[in-house]
Amino acid sequence: MENTGLKNRGNQRSDVDDRRKAVEKLVNKELKSISDYSFDPAAASKNIENMIGVTQIPLGFAGPVKINGEYAKGDFIVPMATTEGALVASVARGMSLITASGGANVKVFKDAMTRAPVFRVKGIEHSSDVMKWISGNMKKIGDAVGKTTSHGKLMNIETFPNGRSLFVRMSYDTGDAMGMNMVTIATEAVCRIIEKETGAALVSVSGNMCTDKKPAWINAIGGRGKTVVAESLISRKIIETKLHTSVESVIETNTRKNLIGSSMAGSAGHNAHAANMVAALYIATGQDPAQVVEASMTMTVCESVDGDLYISVRMPSVEVGTVGGGTRLPCQTEALEIMDCSGNGKARKLAEIVAVTVLAGELSTLGAQAAGHLGKAHSELGR
Amino acid sequence: MENTGLKNRGNQRSDVDDRRKAVEKLVNKELKSISDYSFDPAAASKNIENMIGVTQIPLGFAGPVKINGEYAKGDFIVPMATTEGALVASVARGMSLITASGGANVKVFKDAMTRAPVFRVKGIEHSSDVMKWISGNMKKIGDAVGKTTSHGKLMNIETFPNGRSLFVRMSYDTGDAMGMNMVTIATEAVCRIIEKETGAALVSVSGNMCTDKKPAWINAIGGRGKTVVAESLISRKIIETKLHTSVESVIETNTRKNLIGSSMAGSAGHNAHAANMVAALYIATGQDPAQVVEASMTMTVCESVDGDLYISVRMPSVEVGTVGGGTRLPCQTEALEIMDCSGNGKARKLAEIVAVTVLAGELSTLGAQAAGHLGKAHSELGR
Amino acid sequence: MENTGLKNRGNQRSDVDDRRKAVEKLVNKELKSISDYSFDPAAASKNIENMIGVTQIPLGFAGPVKINGEYAKGDFIVPMATTEGALVASVARGMSLITASGGANVKVFKDAMTRAPVFRVKGIEHSSDVMKWISGNMKKIGDAVGKTTSHGKLMNIETFPNGRSLFVRMSYDTGDAMGMNMVTIATEAVCRIIEKETGAALVSVSGNMCTDKKPAWINAIGGRGKTVVAESLISRKIIETKLHTSVESVIETNTRKNLIGSSMAGSAGHNAHAANMVAALYIATGQDPAQVVEASMTMTVCESVDGDLYISVRMPSVEVGTVGGGTRLPCQTEALEIMDCSGNGKARKLAEIVAVTVLAGELSTLGAQAAGHLGKAHSELGR
Amino acid sequence: MENTGLKNRGNQRSDVDDRRKAVEKLVNKELKSISDYSFDPAAASKNIENMIGVTQIPLGFAGPVKINGEYAKGDFIVPMATTEGALVASVARGMSLITASGGANVKVFKDAMTRAPVFRVKGIEHSSDVMKWISGNMKKIGDAVGKTTSHGKLMNIETFPNGRSLFVRMSYDTGDAMGMNMVTIATEAVCRIIEKETGAALVSVSGNMCTDKKPAWINAIGGRGKTVVAESLISRKIIETKLHTSVESVIETNTRKNLIGSSMAGSAGHNAHAANMVAALYIATGQDPAQVVEASMTMTVCESVDGDLYISVRMPSVEVGTVGGGTRLPCQTEALEIMDCSGNGKARKLAEIVAVTVLAGELSTLGAQAAGHLGKAHSELGR
Repeated sequence: MENTGLKNRGNQRSDVDDRRKAVEKLVNKELKSISDYSFDPAAASKNIENMIGVTQIPLGFAGPVKINGEYAKGDFIVPMATTEGALVASVARGMSLITASGGANVKVFKDAMTRAPVFRVKGIEHSSDVMKWISGNMKKIGDAVGKTTSHGKLMNIETFPNGRSLFVRMSYDTGDAMGMNMVTIATEAVCRIIEKETGAALVSVSGNMCTDKKPAWINAIGGRGKTVVAESLISRKIIETKLHTSVESVIETNTRKNLIGSSMAGSAGHNAHAANMVAALYIATGQDPAQVVEASMTMTVCESVDGDLYISVRMPSVEVGTVGGGTRLPCQTEALEIMDCSGNGKARKLAEIVAVTVLAGELSTLGAQAAGHLGKAHSELGR
Repeated sequence: MENTGLKNRGNQRSDVDDRRKAVEKLVNKELKSISDYSFDPAAASKNIENMIGVTQIPLGFAGPVKINGEYAKGDFIVPMATTEGALVASVARGMSLITASGGANVKVFKDAMTRAPVFRVKGIEHSSDVMKWISGNMKKIGDAVGKTTSHGKLMNIETFPNGRSLFVRMSYDTGDAMGMNMVTIATEAVCRIIEKETGAALVSVSGNMCTDKKPAWINAIGGRGKTVVAESLISRKIIETKLHTSVESVIETNTRKNLIGSSMAGSAGHNAHAANMVAALYIATGQDPAQVVEASMTMTVCESVDGDLYISVRMPSVEVGTVGGGTRLPCQTEALEIMDCSGNGKARKLAEIVAVTVLAGELSTLGAQAAGHLGKAHSELGR
Repeated sequence: MENTGLKNRGNQRSDVDDRRKAVEKLVNKELKSISDYSFDPAAASKNIENMIGVTQIPLGFAGPVKINGEYAKGDFIVPMATTEGALVASVARGMSLITASGGANVKVFKDAMTRAPVFRVKGIEHSSDVMKWISGNMKKIGDAVGKTTSHGKLMNIETFPNGRSLFVRMSYDTGDAMGMNMVTIATEAVCRIIEKETGAALVSVSGNMCTDKKPAWINAIGGRGKTVVAESLISRKIIETKLHTSVESVIETNTRKNLIGSSMAGSAGHNAHAANMVAALYIATGQDPAQVVEASMTMTVCESVDGDLYISVRMPSVEVGTVGGGTRLPCQTEALEIMDCSGNGKARKLAEIVAVTVLAGELSTLGAQAAGHLGKAHSELGR
Repeated sequence: MENTGLKNRGNQRSDVDDRRKAVEKLVNKELKSISDYSFDPAAASKNIENMIGVTQIPLGFAGPVKINGEYAKGDFIVPMATTEGALVASVARGMSLITASGGANVKVFKDAMTRAPVFRVKGIEHSSDVMKWISGNMKKIGDAVGKTTSHGKLMNIETFPNGRSLFVRMSYDTGDAMGMNMVTIATEAVCRIIEKETGAALVSVSGNMCTDKKPAWINAIGGRGKTVVAESLISRKIIETKLHTSVESVIETNTRKNLIGSSMAGSAGHNAHAANMVAALYIATGQDPAQVVEASMTMTVCESVDGDLYISVRMPSVEVGTVGGGTRLPCQTEALEIMDCSGNGKARKLAEIVAVTVLAGELSTLGAQAAGHLGKAHSELGR
């Protein structure tokens, strides 16, 4: 298999064309749709290598939805990129019920991005010494972080000794960036100091107690990125007239499915389909779609309050940014702008919108399942 | 907020334009990039509602990679849609090492899509009666399934009684479709029969013991979709000259990070970043990106075999299809065609390629972390 | 430290005395209470080594409780060995409410003891070959089992390939023995055949997918030992007059605590204190107290049925026997006899009593917490 | 079923006799062994209700083992109450290897007992208000704790909002008591203040995020009771001559079984049989045997250090005390005295001994499995 275009490392449109043609030749297929894109590939040079074109994902919207957040206040249109029929319609329905009920409340309760290197130590005594050095030198460590980033700030460090392994979980404020790269670089700088001062040997800058892109209880319990809770009180009348079911049925569905069923399955996610909403919104806005994993660890709770339906979602790990990464690309920037969420000062606002969107999707799907027509919806819209 | 375009439910290009303009007006932003797409929106009418345009995701490729699978045999170029800098380069590096070492072996060990409704029963005795009815009427149930689908076939049913809840986990062969919609519709048909024959009341066609789009041990242990294992033996020399580290360092990194670290974090995924590769490949090929959640429950193992590096990934839940869903869209079809994975008879082949792509990414990242330059890679390529 | 008595390996009373005196001398303390036991130590020679006496655990009883099981039918006194004040009183209270409400229903839904060796294989192809050999030679394997035990019977085998590791989970019917030793010996015999026929190398007869004495989802989902569900319907009036709380409060307590709280904590047990009842009953009857671990993975559910309180417990892993192990010792045999559970044909009966005892303890504690006086109970009885 | 003795609530020996006779009459069995006990039942009045006698558990010992801890220093004899044949012998073997290798190092890295009530709140805003009140009134809360106990001290409070539920996890220093009762009473006092000051309604003083007697990741990650790590370096020669296997085989067994196998099983415990050692030691010394559950979440790691075997155990949740509870009973006090662990100032010492005992048992069993004779040991000693 020889093919010089495959080796082209340039990032001009002509380079993209050259590579794509090389692929076309190799696999003997024309890649017409893939070749059709509207932005300067050089602008994506920090987002991808070996670019040959784009994938176009259909983009729809749900809303407007009324949000009473700390950062997101008002009525919002939410862009969703998906290929799953019925998803946007379902979320839109949920949003309309929420809005008709006065909107959703939402709050970011915690906000920190983590990276947890693992060191090889000589054993217990050495672990203990390293831990003491760290707790005694927080200023020095914070200064080292400061040299690598002007946006990130070290918040705290937790240590987990285990034989000849020592895990050091560092939590950062990363401003409006999702922050993984920032904290990786900062952590690496800190690791070099720890190595030098303590004799501990860095094995990996990520020792998986971070935990990034894996479903881990450390995040579900303690949070990673933003920990967000959203809620809404939907009147009994709306449940009956719009969802064609009862408050009691929705609660029963949530209890047997999301609480009991998830628990019996050994699930870290107690929800109907949070990952669907998150994936669509993350892809639309240039977030990291692999971090849908953490966001899937959402818990949905329904209860009756004076006969109406109180519904809430707790999302311990919403990892989003409004600067950097995929947010710089044109479609993604536009999607953020639809919600006035592009650029500095917007990350928590975006996290609040994510949670309310999940709330809307949960409400709608629970309602549909309670009313017994999930299969029908898929049959008509999504097959 | 009054805006008639927002209510347009059509799926012609003019309808898309009408809606997008309504959104533009509402939020007072021009959505130029979003409006730039090359396919007939009517073709996406089963994939999305309220379409206003597209999200363009940069598409690159990794490979060629040599695969010695049961279905995937030969050298493959793998399309990846991502906005995470360094990802494609990293996977490409891993693939080049694998190919130089003779390629990767891979096998689909299990293949079944599940749906698990939950019923309300009167208690233990009723549960027991329903369970007996089910096990005594498998043919009748299979026939009911057959009336809803010509592609899907019921394989087996497991039951989980719990007080007044009875969970019924149905496993299906769904051919080359990922199959969620198919099995939802089939299961719903079965539920109606169970309700009628046994008096059990369907609470939800999905009782979360399925488990779809949540990280659940029932899938990690028993599988959902395809259970795939991939492996490669990388020579010591390649590790030293190409990864600039040692076999022992890679093994140590994997052990302290993916085995020990993940276990200490309470993670259901014991890998470096499987979700990254899966997300990029799923998005490129029209799979359901929310099912990256299940795929993130991958275990990577490294060991020394006669001084060389044996590396493997076990993926218990790769949920992919090559027909239906997002695979019908033009860019996505082309991406599948790059791997000769479009259409009937290709789903297991695609699953094998997914696993090998994950293997390549794991190898590369473990090598990078072992060599101590993860932060550097992100700093140069991805910031 | 020289002390010949410490090395005495005999199991007559004089040997026990000799060893105890050696210990007394070594630590310079008299062990008067420990020395006071009433059975012939030779009878415990298969239960302990280096015996120096006994630990006396206070033994109380709860009940009578009315049980409507498949095996346990009638009114039962339940012996409990514990040092936790208030526990017996609490269970007794729960039993009295259950009995006043017509008793508890209970059923053993599944019954199998497992052992899962791990083999080293050469990789995927070898794994596949071994798996084929196993599925093609079930009779031969069953015969090998039969040569090691007349009580145990192989039921089925599941395989889990993972790179160069192959896990083989064997499920057995072990009659009225808890069966761990029986299945270990039988499995070892099977392993030798697998090694010989397939070239796979046994690494450990227990590869931890069994899973014994660790809290593992494979047991919580699929069961190990007996999977038992118990239930009772407690009238609203009894809740109000005896528990001094309301049906709604008990349900709310169970939902927020056992369903939501346990799920947020990443717990595999969704109950108030199942382990308490299990430990007391296991110790009293000579079960393995380390297997309280598996039994702690109990789920308690409360709901309202026509205004009364329906309460149930699902225990996926009750590992008990009525022959062998600690059941042969005199106090333990007597405790079993109190329930007519000693000897052959009684293991499932015992499992049913375990589940009902847990049900009673859950009911009582949830009631106490709902009524707000848990601390008070401990303060008066248990401090 | 009428039987006045069953209703006797006294705690003199005559009351015990009266009750036992009532039980004997009811079930028509003589309870001779149960009746044979040597202590004044009034002394157990805070440990049990409805006492009818005792359960005698055979008590053996393992050791001496050399311990180089912070609190446990020197050679220790460890009492173990068990009915599992081969267990004491196995631990004794492990201890002898450890001692021959210079002993085990061990350290308590963290020490706190927790209780986590759950409150009903009105929603997000109310949650936020309560959280603010708590963080602003730590002194007041600490004072309320101080009024309930002179031994316990509040260390910190974590809050977990979730819709209309608010979980408040309080961590205490409980001195030498295990401390559950102490912290329950203290927490209840705090709850009353929170209710009064904030309007939040206490639903349960234990909301299961504590988490007591259930296997929960919140404890495995963050610890509950004492977090202890123990280690030993066993020379290659000892492994070969005493365990009849190789360093490499022990490491392989640990990796495939305790790391890979446990992870595939969804286990929160990555060890061979930690629960065995813990149960035997807890029962012997009057600890709470239901807390074996938490202790089972132990991770065992083996690696080669210059050709020798480094073995360690990490136990995040060792909940022990040397005052109060079952430690006051005569046999249990004597068992504690064997290790000079009775009374004040000894709890951490006991925790260190627990961890080293687990280390010894792990070493021995891994060695036995590596050498391929686990079944044989059970066959000869334990059947």
